[in-house]
Amino acid sequence: MEREFIQWLRTQTPTDASVPLSIGDDAAILQLASGSRCVISTDLLTDGVDFLFDEVTPERIGRKALAVNLSDMAAMGATPFAALVSLVVPHHFGVETMKDLYRGIFELAQSFQLPIVGGDTNSWDGALAISITILGQNSTRGPWLRSGAKPDDLIVVTGQLGGSILSKHFDFTPRVKEALLINEDFEVHAATDISDGLSRDLSNVLSESSCGAVLDLDLIPISDDAKRLSVINADAKNISPIDHALDDGEDFELILAMPFDEAERLVKNPPCECPITVIGRFVSEKGLWVKGPDGIRQPRPPRGFEHQI
Amino acid sequence: MEREFIQWLRTQTPTDASVPLSIGDDAAILQLASGSRCVISTDLLTDGVDFLFDEVTPERIGRKALAVNLSDMAAMGATPFAALVSLVVPHHFGVETMKDLYRGIFELAQSFQLPIVGGDTNSWDGALAISITILGQNSTRGPWLRSGAKPDDLIVVTGQLGGSILSKHFDFTPRVKEALLINEDFEVHAATDISDGLSRDLSNVLSESSCGAVLDLDLIPISDDAKRLSVINADAKNISPIDHALDDGEDFELILAMPFDEAERLVKNPPCECPITVIGRFVSEKGLWVKGPDGIRQPRPPRGFEHQI
Repeated sequence: MEREFIQWLRTQTPTDASVPLSIGDDAAILQLASGSRCVISTDLLTDGVDFLFDEVTPERIGRKALAVNLSDMAAMGATPFAALVSLVVPHHFGVETMKDLYRGIFELAQSFQLPIVGGDTNSWDGALAISITILGQNSTRGPWLRSGAKPDDLIVVTGQLGGSILSKHFDFTPRVKEALLINEDFEVHAATDISDGLSRDLSNVLSESSCGAVLDLDLIPISDDAKRLSVINADAKNISPIDHALDDGEDFELILAMPFDEAERLVKNPPCECPITVIGRFVSEKGLWVKGPDGIRQPRPPRGFEHQI
Repeated sequence: MEREFIQWLRTQTPTDASVPLSIGDDAAILQLASGSRCVISTDLLTDGVDFLFDEVTPERIGRKALAVNLSDMAAMGATPFAALVSLVVPHHFGVETMKDLYRGIFELAQSFQLPIVGGDTNSWDGALAISITILGQNSTRGPWLRSGAKPDDLIVVTGQLGGSILSKHFDFTPRVKEALLINEDFEVHAATDISDGLSRDLSNVLSESSCGAVLDLDLIPISDDAKRLSVINADAKNISPIDHALDDGEDFELILAMPFDEAERLVKNPPCECPITVIGRFVSEKGLWVKGPDGIRQPRPPRGFEHQI
């Protein structure tokens, strides 16, 4: 449903000279009259969907609200430049709770030298919702899009995948620094971040790039939390660690499409400390497949998170 | 309460070379690495506070959500360049209702050649909330701030004031075109828009400009709706038309601080069709006064809308 609605929105908002990239990527690209470009995106987090206010501190909620936006900048290979915070809080919130929310935002912002330049604060009968808009500047190589992957490019991911619900979805550090270091020295054809799950976010790259991909299950870096979650939920859900890695949302790691040689060079000489792993290859035939130890390809439709609207 | 909280936020977000103007005006100003500047602001509207979903069409709600943001650009004398829409809707919303909301946004956006370049759409157990962020480009004269009013400047307003609750708060056309025409040909020392009421928004200019003002009650352009509202509510509230004009929120007209000669020239040769009226004068002594037909000054503290958080 979200997918169709976004398609409808895209038909209503065509790109033009001043908006080279509009709705449908991790951020939009704007061409200012001065000749410079910037990237801009927005994410809205709500109580009961992205966090449970009663189960987590206001600081962590504020931090997450900014972190998911920073992750969009990382997915574009762009330098975060400024952010604005809109929020609506329940009437019964005290000012101290509000300040705690903002403290979580400010602390993460400062670690990325990101100024919070504006916002709007309201109260109402409802629950907490936070919308952050973030503006970034292009690197000299230009922003990464979802649409540039080519057959035979390798699929590269940062970090380890799956099980983020156990804590990473609040505590992850968005891959901004890693993205900028990679963008500085390596050729990247396409990129996105994992917000709705590797299989779903990779599928977005595939549809924007009009190609397919084969994931090598043996290569996918499965996080310890994916393994733990598989055990914790064994009775109820019986989801394997690899399926957690393929489908869990909110890893906020990067998926990169890179030419073979560049991907090899990146893995051998990573400019950053986080794990960087080749997990498969883009192919010309449309679709998403996985390949197990037996070498046989099997179709693997995305199962990640999709907003119901 | 909102005022103190914003003061706290301002202490947390100092201005610097890349952010010449941060929280506390109608928009922030950003200095991009390319040398160009842009202005940016955000406004969040919620069901039960800014509109009653059950009493108004989704189109009008969407339109208002964008209009208040456009008004911020007008208040800066800036050209709206792009907007992003974040919203969270109740689960039971159908896609058609969502599209109707967006249709209200798109229709107004198109009339200002404003592209909607991104957004985030979510659903939840709660009520409708819409946050729009708008980006603008400076005119060659630069943006108008709240902080530039000088003693002996005249106070100029567009349009007619008061009673917007009867319909104008949904149906107003933000004064973007008027602002750009005035900015092109006239010297303006300071500006803001009337969102919380003339007395309160003018007081914001006074505190940012470290001066006072005397309003001439005979000159204030009272709208027909202010007069109607005074009659409609006569039994319950007994608020005079002039007090509606002074204190009612959401007129979304402009308040300008202009040098005497420039204000006179503007009134004589208005570049736009809307009423433009001199309503008083800035003075060096801090405070807000009104002057009636008897010529006697009386202190007049702001009584406009203040968010309770």
